[in-house]
Amino acid sequence: MMKRIAIDMDEVIADPIKKFIEMFHNEYGTPLDFKVETGKELHECLPEASFEKVYEYLNQKGFFRDLEVIEGSQDAIRKLQTKYDVYIVSAASEFRNSFTDKYDWLAEHFPFISWENIIFCGKKIVDVDIMIDDRIKNFVGFDGRPLLFSSPHNLLLTQYERVDNWQQVLDKLM
Amino acid sequence: MMKRIAIDMDEVIADPIKKFIEMFHNEYGTPLDFKVETGKELHECLPEASFEKVYEYLNQKGFFRDLEVIEGSQDAIRKLQTKYDVYIVSAASEFRNSFTDKYDWLAEHFPFISWENIIFCGKKIVDVDIMIDDRIKNFVGFDGRPLLFSSPHNLLLTQYERVDNWQQVLDKLM
Repeated sequence: MMKRIAIDMDEVIADPIKKFIEMFHNEYGTPLDFKVETGKELHECLPEASFEKVYEYLNQKGFFRDLEVIEGSQDAIRKLQTKYDVYIVSAASEFRNSFTDKYDWLAEHFPFISWENIIFCGKKIVDVDIMIDDRIKNFVGFDGRPLLFSSPHNLLLTQYERVDNWQQVLDKLM
Repeated sequence: MMKRIAIDMDEVIADPIKKFIEMFHNEYGTPLDFKVETGKELHECLPEASFEKVYEYLNQKGFFRDLEVIEGSQDAIRKLQTKYDVYIVSAASEFRNSFTDKYDWLAEHFPFISWENIIFCGKKIVDVDIMIDDRIKNFVGFDGRPLLFSSPHNLLLTQYERVDNWQQVLDKLM
């Protein structure tokens, strides 16, 4: 049986940060080349922003529908599928309006992933061998191989095996 | 740590069969007291029906929003939560339009289940100790304790521990 991989969506195959910055630009004039500081969350870096504002954006219908694809993720996942049983595992249950947007986004950009391999959840209690995620909370209690996908907020963490991009994922797993 | 239970939705806590029969009644005059034959699927029992017609209904927006709650499931799950970490695990990914309907249905009838414990998936590759489901395909590869929740289509199967109703689930697990 093929080993199973669980792959997160946001900040791993989809880019919500870029969209947030565009929305903050439109609402507050935040520069479009704004960078999230190392080790911080987006909402901690934007003076006008608040945790609530980020949640307001996340809850808007359509937010997750037109995110940019993270570079290299499509080709890499197609390659991984030749050797692994690949699942997309996203914590969509936090945001009622995100389900259909995420589903349609996957159908558009990752049509080679079957509905059987799409998991929208809260806590990621999946029975897989490898988990690629940018949030270490999802590794708690996971006894497989975690790969921490680099994102500004996690760059200071050292306790997990790290991948900075999709080429590094392929170098490690193929 | 509490043991985890995965609980299916359709034919376990929600009743799509009753709604199907009402829809067939409205479209074809099928009697409202129609019963699915033991060991058969609904679509095999209705002369006018076809597999495609059942799928057409399932794909309609709203189909899963107003299903009746299976008797005893709400009280039973509240009791199970005192001893177990309870997850709702539904194969919603097969039907694009079902996500929001199922989410809103759960919010209405099971408001005591957190978003963190809701999983909409395809293949049920969940890391749990007990799985309550009416479809034995979901038990394949599962190495915990499966409980087959009785539904007409599964009544002839004998290879799994069976529960006929929610009182029997409580008798076994509490």
